[in-house]
Amino acid sequence: MSDLAEQRRGRAGRGGGAARRAERTAVSFETARFIERNVPNLEILNAEALEIIEGNAETILQEIGVAFPDNPAALDRWKAAGADIQGDRVRLPKGLARELVKTAPGSFTQHARNPARNVEIGGRNLVLAPVYGPPFVRDVNGGRRYATMADFEKFVKLTYMSKWLHHSGGTVCEPTDIPVNKRHLDMLLAHMTLSDKPFMGSVTEPSRAQDSVDMAKILFGADFVDQNTVMTSLVNINSPLTFDATMMGALEVYAANNQAAIISPFIVGGAMAPVSVAGTLTQVLAEILAGVSYSQLVRPGAPAIAGAFVTSIDMNSGAPTFGTPEASMITYGTGQLVRRLGLPYRSAGGFCGSKLPDAQAGYESANSLNMGLLAGVNFMLHAAGWLEGGLVASFEKFVMDADQLGALHKIAAGVDVSADAQAMDAIREVGPGGHYLGCAHTQANFKSAFWRSEVLDYKPFETWDEEGARTTEALAAVRVEKLLGQYQPPPMDPGMSEALHGFVAEKKASMPDAFS
Amino acid sequence: MSDLAEQRRGRAGRGGGAARRAERTAVSFETARFIERNVPNLEILNAEALEIIEGNAETILQEIGVAFPDNPAALDRWKAAGADIQGDRVRLPKGLARELVKTAPGSFTQHARNPARNVEIGGRNLVLAPVYGPPFVRDVNGGRRYATMADFEKFVKLTYMSKWLHHSGGTVCEPTDIPVNKRHLDMLLAHMTLSDKPFMGSVTEPSRAQDSVDMAKILFGADFVDQNTVMTSLVNINSPLTFDATMMGALEVYAANNQAAIISPFIVGGAMAPVSVAGTLTQVLAEILAGVSYSQLVRPGAPAIAGAFVTSIDMNSGAPTFGTPEASMITYGTGQLVRRLGLPYRSAGGFCGSKLPDAQAGYESANSLNMGLLAGVNFMLHAAGWLEGGLVASFEKFVMDADQLGALHKIAAGVDVSADAQAMDAIREVGPGGHYLGCAHTQANFKSAFWRSEVLDYKPFETWDEEGARTTEALAAVRVEKLLGQYQPPPMDPGMSEALHGFVAEKKASMPDAFS
Repeated sequence: MSDLAEQRRGRAGRGGGAARRAERTAVSFETARFIERNVPNLEILNAEALEIIEGNAETILQEIGVAFPDNPAALDRWKAAGADIQGDRVRLPKGLARELVKTAPGSFTQHARNPARNVEIGGRNLVLAPVYGPPFVRDVNGGRRYATMADFEKFVKLTYMSKWLHHSGGTVCEPTDIPVNKRHLDMLLAHMTLSDKPFMGSVTEPSRAQDSVDMAKILFGADFVDQNTVMTSLVNINSPLTFDATMMGALEVYAANNQAAIISPFIVGGAMAPVSVAGTLTQVLAEILAGVSYSQLVRPGAPAIAGAFVTSIDMNSGAPTFGTPEASMITYGTGQLVRRLGLPYRSAGGFCGSKLPDAQAGYESANSLNMGLLAGVNFMLHAAGWLEGGLVASFEKFVMDADQLGALHKIAAGVDVSADAQAMDAIREVGPGGHYLGCAHTQANFKSAFWRSEVLDYKPFETWDEEGARTTEALAAVRVEKLLGQYQPPPMDPGMSEALHGFVAEKKASMPDAFS
Repeated sequence: MSDLAEQRRGRAGRGGGAARRAERTAVSFETARFIERNVPNLEILNAEALEIIEGNAETILQEIGVAFPDNPAALDRWKAAGADIQGDRVRLPKGLARELVKTAPGSFTQHARNPARNVEIGGRNLVLAPVYGPPFVRDVNGGRRYATMADFEKFVKLTYMSKWLHHSGGTVCEPTDIPVNKRHLDMLLAHMTLSDKPFMGSVTEPSRAQDSVDMAKILFGADFVDQNTVMTSLVNINSPLTFDATMMGALEVYAANNQAAIISPFIVGGAMAPVSVAGTLTQVLAEILAGVSYSQLVRPGAPAIAGAFVTSIDMNSGAPTFGTPEASMITYGTGQLVRRLGLPYRSAGGFCGSKLPDAQAGYESANSLNMGLLAGVNFMLHAAGWLEGGLVASFEKFVMDADQLGALHKIAAGVDVSADAQAMDAIREVGPGGHYLGCAHTQANFKSAFWRSEVLDYKPFETWDEEGARTTEALAAVRVEKLLGQYQPPPMDPGMSEALHGFVAEKKASMPDAFS
């Protein structure tokens, strides 16, 4: 372990000499710091609405309660905390959950193996992570197809190279060519070796959560993991009001190891929650209160992120819909409710229902991304690459979304009113009827004044036409190829790489393949 | 004139019997009421920033001044009001402009010939109008081509049939097949006869503004026009700080006739204003103050809308860019500054730089539309159909944008927290682990619960694929054809139609054709 310990020390010391040298040369893989908002949140619920919804959520917890099926240990924890237990139903006296969540931190650091990539989750920050979960991928060459581990690795590389994504995410797509019971190992290995950004652990079985913790201990050192948060994992609530034993088992592993869990209702409004915004907000708040409280019963102080994944439904077809006004209102409203609990907030993303990265995808995703910024989201999963209601991870959509995330950074920075930004000298110099293109202030500032897209087309019509009259999808495909062609892995000690590969090989050899 | 007077009385009395019957049958042409916002505005400037920008704007007006070239009458008006005049430069003592704008109304009614379509411009309202000015049109069949009067009429019809557009706009595209000096007459005739929504007058020459007023007097009656606002017209400021005589001439006609003018800097940031957000906001405020003040010198109390058309620039190519973060910040900030002046605010739109109604168009337009809603805009020109930086009016983009405007209506309505919307009975009925699809609350509310797109695709992948794997553009093309096929003109008294056509024919016969 001396090599690993050495590597660990190097990391904690902000990179050894080799790492520092490699970082200096990898200029094209610059990552922006996570967003610190300098603009206000949009607060759509007034005081009366907040009071009604918070009161109703307490009523739900007390009168209806929540279900923790197949989980006697959870029922014991709840009973000890003062809840009323009938079968698997847990009813919480008013105020209990709100009291319990107080031990969860309002903000925490998730460490990356490259400390320059550490993120602060909570407060006025916004951390952006790629799409999570699609079984399919799409690109212009291969069309829509089942995702493989090769696709997964491409998305990890693209995320690593994307300036505006701060986090490597988790299941960026499902590597369906790897057995179900083993793919978490390959996914973690890819995040750990192909990127140096922070990442997520597995939640599909408690044992896979434990494997995630064990691999993290190799990468970061066991002592470091005991004392710091190095993973943020997605624990969905089975709405309405049900906390299934598999997800809770994963939560228990992460909380016990002081690792962060996103505790998140997964709601298609009208199906898993009432068809009304206020009703959905009420149920979401009750679920967040119960879920985060439970994490604190496992280990007081364990970091938790209150989540809300909410879409509306097309009442004609039953299909989930994205980028809709109801989803926006729920996302804004949940933000207010979560801030009043003092918890970090996960929501939003580049959501769309479109089958293609076309205009529908653009409208819906921009609606969602803007709303996420203004709703005060702290951790935005699915910020890039989401297509077709989350069934598909699109390579072209990924680079389009990632590009738009740069615009969010700029808006979030707010308005600079320094003497230079006031530009009074420029206005005096140019005067009525002049133009600013050549003035001193413009010359001094034009390089950084405006956000610039790396994907979208700004050329005159004639130039664009001569170059093939390409759609955004075609332009994005060029960028995907360019980025993948430029990829270089972040430096890693060979001993560390060997140890991680060895762990995965040994684990995989110990199990038969399972494909369902 | 007795027929016309009769028609006028019918209008003022909320439609005669024939009109009422026609309205009842024209169910597919329902128009939503203008938006009354029940959500807060996003205020990105803090008190210090507001104070700096407002102070600097006053300094600009006092020290640098504004130019009113070739307009001795304007200089006389300014001199009488207390300004310092040197050549065509007008310098305003601090506080003068802010005092003068006080006579402009904070909100006013723009009347439509169908009083059910009247709009209130100002306060917490948002009125939506189509694209203005493109010399080209595009559709999937004909590609990109010069716009004609036939195209113009199609856009007026589409706007009339669009539920979410409240206003017929003005130059929805340039009918390039009609002589420049006559096309305003045909455009006005189309707005007046093919639609019953409120519309805009011509500004390209003072005489054309007068023609607009004269035609409005036929449609509404001369007395009615004297006492009410029936047109809202777009008067651009020639930034920086220049008020050209043609535009001011149009403004003088409208203000003298108590008709509304949008007084609007047209700014490509970095060219016509400083490259910084704060500097641009300062110049915009100075220009608004001078322009609206001038309208009040012409006629105190004349309705004015403080405008801001602001884009950023691609510093590599010099091309204007749309849907960018800097434009958003300027739009948000100008909203705050204008509200502090107590004036109605015009800004935003479905802006994009894309050549096609593709993903770029979707992202950029959604960025702009959302920002417009949250910036507190009162009159949104270009809300539908804008493509390629405003060079092109796109039929497919028009129906896509118009569809998204429905989503803005829904968000703007805010969160209903009535007992029914709280849905506590539904949450009790369903309980943990159930689903809401069949519950009583869902059955009672599902039809109106969720905004539903008329363009976007929500079908399962397989269905969509079998139906031809259509892009949003292809789906929108179907909707364009469907709407145009369903068009029926709003009822109009034959005598009125004859009078309007007669005026136009007579005017056109009195002039030689001019094409530049």
